Amino acid sequence: MSALTMSCPIPAVARDHVSLGHGSGGKLSAELMREIFLPAFRNETLERLEDQASFSLGTTRVAMTTDSFVVKPLFFRGGDIGSLAVHGTVNDLAMGGALPLYLSTAFIIEEGFPMETLRRIAASLGRAASACGVQVVTGDTKVVDKGSGDGVFINTTGVGVIADGVNLSASGARPGDAVILSGFIGDHGIAILAEREGLEFDSPVESDSAPLHTLVGEMLQTTRAIRCLRDPTRGGVSSSLNEIAGQSRVGIALDEAAIPVREEVRGACEMLGLDPLYVANEGKLLAIVDAAVADELVAAMRRHPLGRDARRIGIVTESDPGWVTLRTLLGTTRIVDMLAGDQLPRIC
Amino acid sequence: MSALTMSCPIPAVARDHVSLGHGSGGKLSAELMREIFLPAFRNETLERLEDQASFSLGTTRVAMTTDSFVVKPLFFRGGDIGSLAVHGTVNDLAMGGALPLYLSTAFIIEEGFPMETLRRIAASLGRAASACGVQVVTGDTKVVDKGSGDGVFINTTGVGVIADGVNLSASGARPGDAVILSGFIGDHGIAILAEREGLEFDSPVESDSAPLHTLVGEMLQTTRAIRCLRDPTRGGVSSSLNEIAGQSRVGIALDEAAIPVREEVRGACEMLGLDPLYVANEGKLLAIVDAAVADELVAAMRRHPLGRDARRIGIVTESDPGWVTLRTLLGTTRIVDMLAGDQLPRIC
Repeated sequence: MSALTMSCPIPAVARDHVSLGHGSGGKLSAELMREIFLPAFRNETLERLEDQASFSLGTTRVAMTTDSFVVKPLFFRGGDIGSLAVHGTVNDLAMGGALPLYLSTAFIIEEGFPMETLRRIAASLGRAASACGVQVVTGDTKVVDKGSGDGVFINTTGVGVIADGVNLSASGARPGDAVILSGFIGDHGIAILAEREGLEFDSPVESDSAPLHTLVGEMLQTTRAIRCLRDPTRGGVSSSLNEIAGQSRVGIALDEAAIPVREEVRGACEMLGLDPLYVANEGKLLAIVDAAVADELVAAMRRHPLGRDARRIGIVTESDPGWVTLRTLLGTTRIVDMLAGDQLPRIC
Repeated sequence: MSALTMSCPIPAVARDHVSLGHGSGGKLSAELMREIFLPAFRNETLERLEDQASFSLGTTRVAMTTDSFVVKPLFFRGGDIGSLAVHGTVNDLAMGGALPLYLSTAFIIEEGFPMETLRRIAASLGRAASACGVQVVTGDTKVVDKGSGDGVFINTTGVGVIADGVNLSASGARPGDAVILSGFIGDHGIAILAEREGLEFDSPVESDSAPLHTLVGEMLQTTRAIRCLRDPTRGGVSSSLNEIAGQSRVGIALDEAAIPVREEVRGACEMLGLDPLYVANEGKLLAIVDAAVADELVAAMRRHPLGRDARRIGIVTESDPGWVTLRTLLGTTRIVDMLAGDQLPRIC
């Protein structure tokens, strides 16, 4: 296919220093992982490159995941750093098929941060945790001198339990599988950008920040023929699917017409020169599933409030292993590469 | 006792903003916990106020703990932020009597940070984890724009398993118990301060940063009559013992003559106006134990390289509940309160 011969340049960043792109969730993040962290921490669990680790404690299969949140601004339409810090970690557990149970939180606060703002953020985090049925069981607070931080950064680490028979993995996709998306894409990224840039919409875009574990629960009750789940956060749908294509050594062919993007999000993306496939989501999931169960699964997802707009958006192919391609609205086919630079720093 | 009527003033910080003292591990940290985090996250596990949470997964008792490391400078005599991030979390698990097994790491990196320095830190973290027998199984990297961070901050969260019959708790101290300290105090704090302030010593002070889980293992094999273990990090010996005295509703009476402080550390403290009892340690532990087993336990600790200088430093009393007192070298008695301000910001 001629599209595969297109060049996909990485911007000329100074590779001897960390750039914003290294935190993008795209190509440079993968490079950092491959060149710095994997060699330093080498072990089989980490090398699986899932969004969560899984291991056994006694006879229990446990999932563990960590994320730091550095989103700017701290409050945005549809959420804040506190609720996001819960949803992000709950979702990474859920993508491993785990029931989220316990969270740790660690705050790094810049000296001089308003106590009342901290109280609001902690309260929001606590409410989000309660709503998810998870407990914040341990924590840490560090304060850095003024100018050495930026308001507040929050790390949450989550622990959950994986039911017997559940084996989700980014290396599990097989040719013929269906690719399912749970709803509209790009809402979180555009909501953050709108706050930051002061964009105005006729109907404002809200972050989709939401916990997906009950949706995943419904999906796993419907079928065990789910190969892989990913929440397309930093780097967007394109980066998540590229990871799956790479790890499963398969191609993924998407149909642009099937991918739901709100009119306001599409408009903002056009204005800003962004591709919605690269914009972050915080309440959406991608599922790679046996095609035979795809329709049944989509129907089940649509019965859940967070899966109302679920649909098939593509298929897994034997051809073009490691590549994601898109059949565009114009009928052409183009490659959808991983995010190369950093589209939107500090989106989560 | 007249000492109890001494006033223990908290410095007049603006309570409507977060100050460096709120990250000190002392009085203001406790206040932040009590007024902001406990009300927001309310649950029994968190309210136990241990250095680690414990809960059951299946039939396995699990410990979980989190810490962010913002130490400055990143490299110091005796360690660096990478090794410290492992030892700190391993030790918090060990203080709960848990065998440390799995770590997550989350890096928040400032744009422009040298890649080679990051590689050194990651390698050090990896080596420290291997040496402890723990695996770094999952991670996260965020990059913040230049000026919004300070080099690199690292969060580690650890998970371990607690053996049957082990029940350590800061609320377990009983009148008559012995207080044991594993070795010389203040090394870490003074080592960091020396780097920061360019202090010179005849024999340089090294951080005591070290993993204590094998020492704890030996201690638990010697006796199960250990009530409580704490590693006196931020806030030093005084803050840890005040927490125990408060949570156990007992008094703790220390004997200054028994508390080992290196000559260089004592000298530096005198020069800087610091009390070694408030200076951070990263490779020491305090044990509250049934007095009947104290000598046997000290003997066992001394057979371990990290417990060579272990000794009894005080007793738990029924009188003065909630207070720590010190019989000084001069024969007087004074109160040892929690750290009030922030003696040494960014010590870990």
